[in-house]
Amino acid sequence: MPTESPDRASAHALRLRRLGIDTYQELVVYMHRDCHACRAEGFEARSRIRVSLGGRHVVATLNTVLGDLLEPDEASLSESAWSALGAKEGDLVRIGHADPVQSESRLRAKVYGERLSWGDLRGIVDDVVGGSYSDLQLAAFATACAGERLDAEETTWLTRAMADAGERMAWDYPVVADKHCVGGLPGNRTTPIVVAIVAACGLPIPKTSSRAITSPAGTADAMEVLAPVDLDLRAMRRVVEREGGCVVWGGAARLSPADDILIRVERPLGFDSNGLIVASVLSKKAAAGSTHVVIDMPVGPSAKVRSVAAADALEQRFTVTAAALGIRLLTVRTDGSQPVGRGMGPALEARDVLAVLQGRAEGLADLQSRATDLAGALLELGGKAPAGRGGALAAEVLADGRAWAKFQAICEAQGGLREVPGAAHSQVVPAPFAGTVRGFDNRRLARTAKLAGAPRAKVAGLDLHVRVGVAVERGQPLFTLHAEAPGELRYALEYFESQDRIIDVADAG
Amino acid sequence: MPTESPDRASAHALRLRRLGIDTYQELVVYMHRDCHACRAEGFEARSRIRVSLGGRHVVATLNTVLGDLLEPDEASLSESAWSALGAKEGDLVRIGHADPVQSESRLRAKVYGERLSWGDLRGIVDDVVGGSYSDLQLAAFATACAGERLDAEETTWLTRAMADAGERMAWDYPVVADKHCVGGLPGNRTTPIVVAIVAACGLPIPKTSSRAITSPAGTADAMEVLAPVDLDLRAMRRVVEREGGCVVWGGAARLSPADDILIRVERPLGFDSNGLIVASVLSKKAAAGSTHVVIDMPVGPSAKVRSVAAADALEQRFTVTAAALGIRLLTVRTDGSQPVGRGMGPALEARDVLAVLQGRAEGLADLQSRATDLAGALLELGGKAPAGRGGALAAEVLADGRAWAKFQAICEAQGGLREVPGAAHSQVVPAPFAGTVRGFDNRRLARTAKLAGAPRAKVAGLDLHVRVGVAVERGQPLFTLHAEAPGELRYALEYFESQDRIIDVADAG
Repeated sequence: MPTESPDRASAHALRLRRLGIDTYQELVVYMHRDCHACRAEGFEARSRIRVSLGGRHVVATLNTVLGDLLEPDEASLSESAWSALGAKEGDLVRIGHADPVQSESRLRAKVYGERLSWGDLRGIVDDVVGGSYSDLQLAAFATACAGERLDAEETTWLTRAMADAGERMAWDYPVVADKHCVGGLPGNRTTPIVVAIVAACGLPIPKTSSRAITSPAGTADAMEVLAPVDLDLRAMRRVVEREGGCVVWGGAARLSPADDILIRVERPLGFDSNGLIVASVLSKKAAAGSTHVVIDMPVGPSAKVRSVAAADALEQRFTVTAAALGIRLLTVRTDGSQPVGRGMGPALEARDVLAVLQGRAEGLADLQSRATDLAGALLELGGKAPAGRGGALAAEVLADGRAWAKFQAICEAQGGLREVPGAAHSQVVPAPFAGTVRGFDNRRLARTAKLAGAPRAKVAGLDLHVRVGVAVERGQPLFTLHAEAPGELRYALEYFESQDRIIDVADAG
Repeated sequence: MPTESPDRASAHALRLRRLGIDTYQELVVYMHRDCHACRAEGFEARSRIRVSLGGRHVVATLNTVLGDLLEPDEASLSESAWSALGAKEGDLVRIGHADPVQSESRLRAKVYGERLSWGDLRGIVDDVVGGSYSDLQLAAFATACAGERLDAEETTWLTRAMADAGERMAWDYPVVADKHCVGGLPGNRTTPIVVAIVAACGLPIPKTSSRAITSPAGTADAMEVLAPVDLDLRAMRRVVEREGGCVVWGGAARLSPADDILIRVERPLGFDSNGLIVASVLSKKAAAGSTHVVIDMPVGPSAKVRSVAAADALEQRFTVTAAALGIRLLTVRTDGSQPVGRGMGPALEARDVLAVLQGRAEGLADLQSRATDLAGALLELGGKAPAGRGGALAAEVLADGRAWAKFQAICEAQGGLREVPGAAHSQVVPAPFAGTVRGFDNRRLARTAKLAGAPRAKVAGLDLHVRVGVAVERGQPLFTLHAEAPGELRYALEYFESQDRIIDVADAG
């Protein structure tokens, strides 16, 4: 029987057995209902538990086990908690009550409609990053900040607190450029092109990107087709110092870790909140040491930003917050009504990127002009082009091969340029009748690409052959599906055929 | 390979294996990451999944398994989902995407600050009861209604929608009495006494009570020491028709099931909300067919209602909502500053109840007077006593043994009156020095009783020997701990001794 006080965090030792359960990063500890710690401490399912191993600890939510999955002297952890503790099978963990969450009363105050101070927000963010908040509390925080419940000053404080609560990168350049796209538009893979152009013009652009969460490909997934992206901060710095730019996966960098934690609950809830969007984007940028940032804001009926009024409000919040953080920021509104480029899926989007960089942009005029617009805006913002001349400079650098040369150099520095693989199985999907393409349902089109295997299968996805306004004959290809396996191809096709108007063709007859 | 469309709910069949994981009623489905359904449908950890078995289905949150806990053609369910589906080991379940949640846009509207209509709230409650809401969405709803974000009319609509969305009991009596206590005060076990008095006076009182969630005993736990409480609706009706009253566990009755679901997330969040408290209490009462309700509202610095202003606001909301539902309601404010009676724990509280009913109320004057006050209020409200005379009538019925006779008859009708068991291990905790008792920390005192084993061990808990204002000598007993096992006794004692001023004694020296 343990001899320590039940309030001491290290009162009970349990042996770890790995069950391998992935809870999407919610930290969960599994213990037998009859284990001595549960009985002595009064732990029940959903109790918040402090789990310590070596010098590390996490706060996890308890799930109890009734059968023989665990012995009473064993515990298990969700994969996220397992890796946070660096656990090994058979390790002894110490189990105790979680400490009271210091910022809980301030979270409650926000829920009741009070305004939060800089100290409040710093306390909340520290507790979020420290893992003290349960997913229910994270959902409550996201809800309490949703709509317009976070004012401009609170947004700035939240952004700063999030940027401070993780790694911060410092660069020896007077200007550090960055870009971000608000709200994914399928195929809008401008980042590698923008980085190549901007770096070719001598403006440092150390770009970290994310992998897909709900889309068929994130920038890091597409870039990984062309070069390694899984670089640590030191390797990333070496690439930037040599080539002036990079496109790496930001997941290992621990820049604004509060953002990663909040996004995990914000995304399934799907509440819009200008304050939280701005804090999410700009905390990452501030932590990455960016000084000049261009925001790509697609506006359209099925995009994240749906109206000019919504775009105005979001732009205003971006501008004010960036100014308070000492970041120069420019918003570029773009067409959010249909997918960009042809490919949807990591390899297909990488192929489009290469085509534009290599001057073979037939059918990719939209991707190319978006990339040069954004690069141009960054060049002007960063002082590499006079006002109104950035786009032309960007187009020139792309046309004369300097951007392509820079991109190859960046890929080499990241570990070597790779060939784009092709899919083993493809199938053309024809128009069922003659007519005019009126529009796309971006969300369901993306889902079709995901059913074909993207982004898990890099080669999977789809290639669009039509754009809005184009007239098609009956039987003319609308798009081509690509997959690793015939079963996946069939799933994607069956889904597409079961749905109405993913591609809206107006009957010509 | 399955041949149905991936959007059809029944596309994939998986064999059930029971893992026995208790998630505190969150519905979770476990599937191997490499299972064909995950791959084909693009399911990932935290996807919302429809699981069907026979004619039943649930919507559950996915946790994926990486190792060999499950085969790729197997699935498992949290205990809550397992029992909701009536599953057996080896059953084949069908897996598909959850349907879109119809009321999601109205939840979002509330989060953004819009007012909800009767139809909105009915839609939300139906989706909550149908299991469509994830725990994150439930937390968002509770947050969006917290503070004063639900107005009087919304509260009435929510209450009515919750009452409608489950079983409803109908009685052939013109008056159906009920009582409820807002905010648990340890030992405040008036219900069995009130029921006995009120029923003895001929006022029907079909009482359903809850088990402990965070306290050392719920009314159903204490009553279960004296008689069976696990009656279905039919058995409950038989008891009430014979004896005019009952005290049974409400958990099996499915009265306002939305309340049980919402409380599961409201409790860990701990946000106060008059609207949600009133909807919770009155939806249960309306569903139970109650027409006349007395609310016991303890007010005190460590009670749920902490000030007169808070009590006023809550009483006002109760009154307006009850009137809109056609329920006659009276609020009785009581002292919330210290525990009631002597015992804390199911058997110890049952013993106090019996002592009062049998006229042996030494040291239990507070429990007795609270019970007669509440019963008196109900008797007046229900027309069995003139205004101002209910308390006296209640005291008379208690004093002359009619209440005790009625209580015995009710226990017999519920399955037989039981003896109150005693604990195998007890220990007296003495005052460390002479002084005057200034106050109690109700929460930590309750935790001490829980560490001793209550409510799991019915005999466990503690007996208070002092009250606020009492002078004690050094070494005089403050309370006695009771437990089933010496280890539990020691845990409770160690906890008590590690804490400061759970019982605040002002040094006389």
